[in-house]
Amino acid sequence: MTSIPARWDYLLLDATLATFANHAPYGLISDGAIALQDGHIAWVGRRDELPADASSLAHHVQHLDGALVTPGLIDCHTHLVFGGDRAHEFDLRLNGASYEEIARAGGGIVSTVKATRAADEDALYTQSLPRAQALLADGVTTIEIKSGYGLDLDSERRMLRVARRIGASLGITVRTTFLGLHALPPEYKERRADYVALACDHMLPALAAEGLVDAVDAFCENIGFSREETQRMFECAKALGLPVKLHAEQLSDLDGAALVAQYHGLSADHLEYLSESGAQAMAAAGTVAVLLPGAFYALRETKLPPIDLLRKHGVAMAVATDCNPGTSPLLSLRLAVGMACTLFRLTPEEALRGATVHAARALGLDDRGTLEVGKRADLAIWQVRHPAEMCYWIGGPLLRHTLLATHEQAA
Amino acid sequence: MTSIPARWDYLLLDATLATFANHAPYGLISDGAIALQDGHIAWVGRRDELPADASSLAHHVQHLDGALVTPGLIDCHTHLVFGGDRAHEFDLRLNGASYEEIARAGGGIVSTVKATRAADEDALYTQSLPRAQALLADGVTTIEIKSGYGLDLDSERRMLRVARRIGASLGITVRTTFLGLHALPPEYKERRADYVALACDHMLPALAAEGLVDAVDAFCENIGFSREETQRMFECAKALGLPVKLHAEQLSDLDGAALVAQYHGLSADHLEYLSESGAQAMAAAGTVAVLLPGAFYALRETKLPPIDLLRKHGVAMAVATDCNPGTSPLLSLRLAVGMACTLFRLTPEEALRGATVHAARALGLDDRGTLEVGKRADLAIWQVRHPAEMCYWIGGPLLRHTLLATHEQAA
Ligand SMILES: [Zn+2]
Ligand SMILES: [Zn+2]
Repeated sequence: MTSIPARWDYLLLDATLATFANHAPYGLISDGAIALQDGHIAWVGRRDELPADASSLAHHVQHLDGALVTPGLIDCHTHLVFGGDRAHEFDLRLNGASYEEIARAGGGIVSTVKATRAADEDALYTQSLPRAQALLADGVTTIEIKSGYGLDLDSERRMLRVARRIGASLGITVRTTFLGLHALPPEYKERRADYVALACDHMLPALAAEGLVDAVDAFCENIGFSREETQRMFECAKALGLPVKLHAEQLSDLDGAALVAQYHGLSADHLEYLSESGAQAMAAAGTVAVLLPGAFYALRETKLPPIDLLRKHGVAMAVATDCNPGTSPLLSLRLAVGMACTLFRLTPEEALRGATVHAARALGLDDRGTLEVGKRADLAIWQVRHPAEMCYWIGGPLLRHTLLATHEQAA
Repeated sequence: MTSIPARWDYLLLDATLATFANHAPYGLISDGAIALQDGHIAWVGRRDELPADASSLAHHVQHLDGALVTPGLIDCHTHLVFGGDRAHEFDLRLNGASYEEIARAGGGIVSTVKATRAADEDALYTQSLPRAQALLADGVTTIEIKSGYGLDLDSERRMLRVARRIGASLGITVRTTFLGLHALPPEYKERRADYVALACDHMLPALAAEGLVDAVDAFCENIGFSREETQRMFECAKALGLPVKLHAEQLSDLDGAALVAQYHGLSADHLEYLSESGAQAMAAAGTVAVLLPGAFYALRETKLPPIDLLRKHGVAMAVATDCNPGTSPLLSLRLAVGMACTLFRLTPEEALRGATVHAARALGLDDRGTLEVGKRADLAIWQVRHPAEMCYWIGGPLLRHTLLATHEQAA
């Protein structure tokens, strides 16, 4: 930290830095400074360790008056590209409609598949962009987006292209995940094996060849796809050199976590019904546990994910919105982080590491998630002075602004 | 609706209007128009019923492209004026600290009383204003604010003055409530009766004489004040001609709802432990049930308020944030409305009537809460097209903007 370059693009002074770069609580630096150059962090530390002439070295100097700076938040599990919404279904359900009545009224995931298929690329982009913007408005600077409402090659491609386009237009990283095994499309109702074969052998290789797939996911559940079907998809991903992750143990224990760990998967997500052996397998493989309290809340689940087991075995925990129209219409990662504290009893520090450093790991990204020299200059600057406040306040416009590496490089 | 004035200040066209003015679902008007003049609603109805030359009659014409317009939301129960915050306590608790340890570390309501007493009027204003602004950012245009963290005459006065000042500076109505019987101040620990006498016979009359009190509240609970102490306060309020309301039946059934109904109270609030006779008494008196799901959520309560009883007896239900540093650090009324649906199973329509027309009733205000001719021109204009979406989406910047009657009058 002693070599000071001739020029920094930005120098932020009088900041409270939650670096998450060491094991101190929040990696906190109270009277901190951070310098950015060419889209990366060039200097970070205590202000009194800055060279005396540091201010003159920077193009822009900002005094933050003690405001909290964190790494830009990372939402590592979303389904935010989709057509339509399910507010009407929400309304019907609260007016006492049964699931059957809702299905008859065209509700459920099939309605999202239908609306997604019906939307052309521009329409899908126009409908989905505000959801990504909502996440950004509460401090997110990296988003994972899954396919899985198209369920045919063209529609899955369109979803992934829209995801990429959202990233480009907002100047943020969007990581795309192929989730062909999300639900059985209605036209394959009687031909389950054919759909699995199509998704594994045809859709995935085609979309991967187009550069649209960063990772591969599946919904491994009694009401979703079996362990064997999931494994078939994972084998195809492996053959293509793509990392895998899994919707696992949300509603029952199919031992999906151990399966994804066996493939050295990036993450196993949900995990309410995770067993101890599943947690051990994840720990051994370095697979991150992605907790999704938004779905737990919206579905009024009562079975908590086994946080103590994850702690005991040292499994890294991430927290994400699961933003989707059916089970988690959640537009704020900070709310998810607060829910992880209130509902799952994570400490504020665990929850915030879950939306920064551990979320980066869940996406296989080692260039972000902490405030350290060399990391990407995606920062969130908050109205508050202590990171615990990010979890404590429920809602409210706490974000002051974000700095994006891409914008700086452009500057 | 046939007499058209020479000039309107505003005409909003192509709006989806949730008027809450009749018993149709949401009082919805799909292709609606609404005209504002001198801070009031001058015309509201279907666009095709507008006179053909209506647009030329208005100073400002805005085409909303189908966007939803609701009455400005009304938060009828908050404690948002206070010093300090309790994020550190939240952090300690999630790190396993016991209530005793937190108390030893200076936590609990006493810490808020201490910080509130220590803050001068400007400091209290500066700390509290952003919380009111946060509520406004999600569509609120009328706020009730309680005292109750001062617990001595000067500090209670300061809280109420700050509440009034927030209203004036934001151009919104703030209704102030004296909550001297919120907690026993530490210096009266051994002199309980003396404090009750001070609050009833000295503080309330003095603050009422200064015009700082719109209503009187108490925390009637085993850990708060008894039914008899509450009644004593209500008698003083009655003598001063001030309406009453009550924190009732949150943690146990002290039959507080019947007590406040006996005084024709504006509202009974919380009500998790409300009995059927309490609900009947409220119905007979026209006392509104104010539901506070934020505290239910943050405290992880499991005892639900008896919504079916309230429905059965036709008790009007309102929904509020209860914004406070200890049990509900909630900065969005729309989030409270969503929680009322998800946690309390209100229909979206019930929840939204609870933040508009019924919240107005809970404050004794008959000039707002619906979109009707003659009502105050406090409007919220949303990014969405259907009111159910306001409850369905969790978080996200859904508000497009508000129109405030005061701003228009100034314009
Ligand atoms: Zn998911
Ligand atoms: Zn309260």
